[in-house]
Amino acid sequence: MSDTLELLSSHACFGGEQRFYRHASREIGLPMQFSVYLPPQALAGGKCPALLYLAGLTCTEETFMVKAGAQQQAAELGLALIAPDTSPRGAGLPGEADAWDFGVGAGFYLDATQAPWAAHWRMESYLLDELLPLAGSALPIDGARLGIFGHSMGGHGALTLALRHPGRFKSLSAFAPICAPTRCPWGVKAFTGYLGPDRAGWGAHDATGLMEQQSTAPYPAGILIDQGLADKFLAEQLHPELFNAACALVGQPLTLRRHEGYDHGYYFIQTFVQDHLRHHAQQLAG
Amino acid sequence: MSDTLELLSSHACFGGEQRFYRHASREIGLPMQFSVYLPPQALAGGKCPALLYLAGLTCTEETFMVKAGAQQQAAELGLALIAPDTSPRGAGLPGEADAWDFGVGAGFYLDATQAPWAAHWRMESYLLDELLPLAGSALPIDGARLGIFGHSMGGHGALTLALRHPGRFKSLSAFAPICAPTRCPWGVKAFTGYLGPDRAGWGAHDATGLMEQQSTAPYPAGILIDQGLADKFLAEQLHPELFNAACALVGQPLTLRRHEGYDHGYYFIQTFVQDHLRHHAQQLAG
Repeated sequence: MSDTLELLSSHACFGGEQRFYRHASREIGLPMQFSVYLPPQALAGGKCPALLYLAGLTCTEETFMVKAGAQQQAAELGLALIAPDTSPRGAGLPGEADAWDFGVGAGFYLDATQAPWAAHWRMESYLLDELLPLAGSALPIDGARLGIFGHSMGGHGALTLALRHPGRFKSLSAFAPICAPTRCPWGVKAFTGYLGPDRAGWGAHDATGLMEQQSTAPYPAGILIDQGLADKFLAEQLHPELFNAACALVGQPLTLRRHEGYDHGYYFIQTFVQDHLRHHAQQLAG
Repeated sequence: MSDTLELLSSHACFGGEQRFYRHASREIGLPMQFSVYLPPQALAGGKCPALLYLAGLTCTEETFMVKAGAQQQAAELGLALIAPDTSPRGAGLPGEADAWDFGVGAGFYLDATQAPWAAHWRMESYLLDELLPLAGSALPIDGARLGIFGHSMGGHGALTLALRHPGRFKSLSAFAPICAPTRCPWGVKAFTGYLGPDRAGWGAHDATGLMEQQSTAPYPAGILIDQGLADKFLAEQLHPELFNAACALVGQPLTLRRHEGYDHGYYFIQTFVQDHLRHHAQQLAG
């Protein structure tokens, strides 16, 4: 395995470039694909701050770049965007593609501890120890100025990785995140499979639980969460009210915006994505 | 067959609604699906001007709405967007799905005259005589203020339908259109199949040929075409230089913008789509 990046395609977009890469991942033990949007400022020779976007169940490294309409604002703000895939692919584990909410397309951005998943399902180590360092070294991206955001399962990923790795990300936001996976069906299924039935280890991957344990606000400049009120997963799976309460408990500023009529999909995301990019740009510049 | 619209889904987007419909088409003789973006102004009770967007080979009624990032600008300008499918589906004709550039997903926006296609492949009559009247009667759309645009095969569709139906569309633009189908492989294949090998009837569906026959400029306020110079189909299939020459011949104002580095896809389209919406909005307001 090497750190060689294979450029699969590149597309001019708002004066920058939308690129798709494949590389042999050391942490995953399989080829992984990811996408990067480089704004004009990066192509002109500068190292740009970057946002890591984590997508939701069933998505790929392409979803956000195709559907969110974020590139124009990224070009204006000089932000790079990085979107990984949502799980390993091609491991060939029994049943890995039987469910849409577990296995392929459903990595939950953690390192599995249970067989057979532990061998390849190492998304947290992949992102923190491999992909982001690789992006910072091989691409015009400033690895010291990173923000993180995501949607649904990827919102869980953004909140938990930001809280588990203090200082690594300077800014944080989410769209309709799974806020308390230990208390919703998606999370219980995933954590049981990846982390085992003993719930003792689950709290370390629960955004609400992680926030409750903070002694001071980890993001004093604030966290932004957007949530649609016509989101069919809101009541059973997402629980932003629990994360909101945890933030209040520890004095973490949180802007939790509830939007009448908006659902769980990318028409919702594209409506508010510019606000997220501005949120990150302000904190990454500060 | 009735004009009843079945709402398949609706998604809040930039204060408006992104809707997907199915209806039993009289002209096609099969169910057809289309998408509509209604801006906030339409939901507030007004009848809005609308743009008919025609997509390219292999696309569906979903492609533009998912990938082009046009809704924000449409909401700001108070424009509705209508995107039909690119062909009949489900006819079950022999070989209808064997090629990506003929048959399913490749209707070329004309009425076929040749068996077996003539029975269902009636996209021109479907759009002009059925879909647009239906949109004007069943939706908050002002059928007297319509613009038309499209991409690639759909750019051919936009240019030819605009020229074949004077006065029906008040404004016209295209992304990387097939400008002279009688002189490119895609067009020759499609016209041979749908219209027959006798080339005498082909000119009535060739944008360059149609423009050459105009006695005065049909769009005196101007036509807008964007073309990427890294478009791999440019040299063999698109021929904007022929359409440009035809416009010059008859005094038709044409803004043909050639963009270094941009390819044939939706990252190109999303970069310039706002200019197209403004182009149409100005002419539809005037």
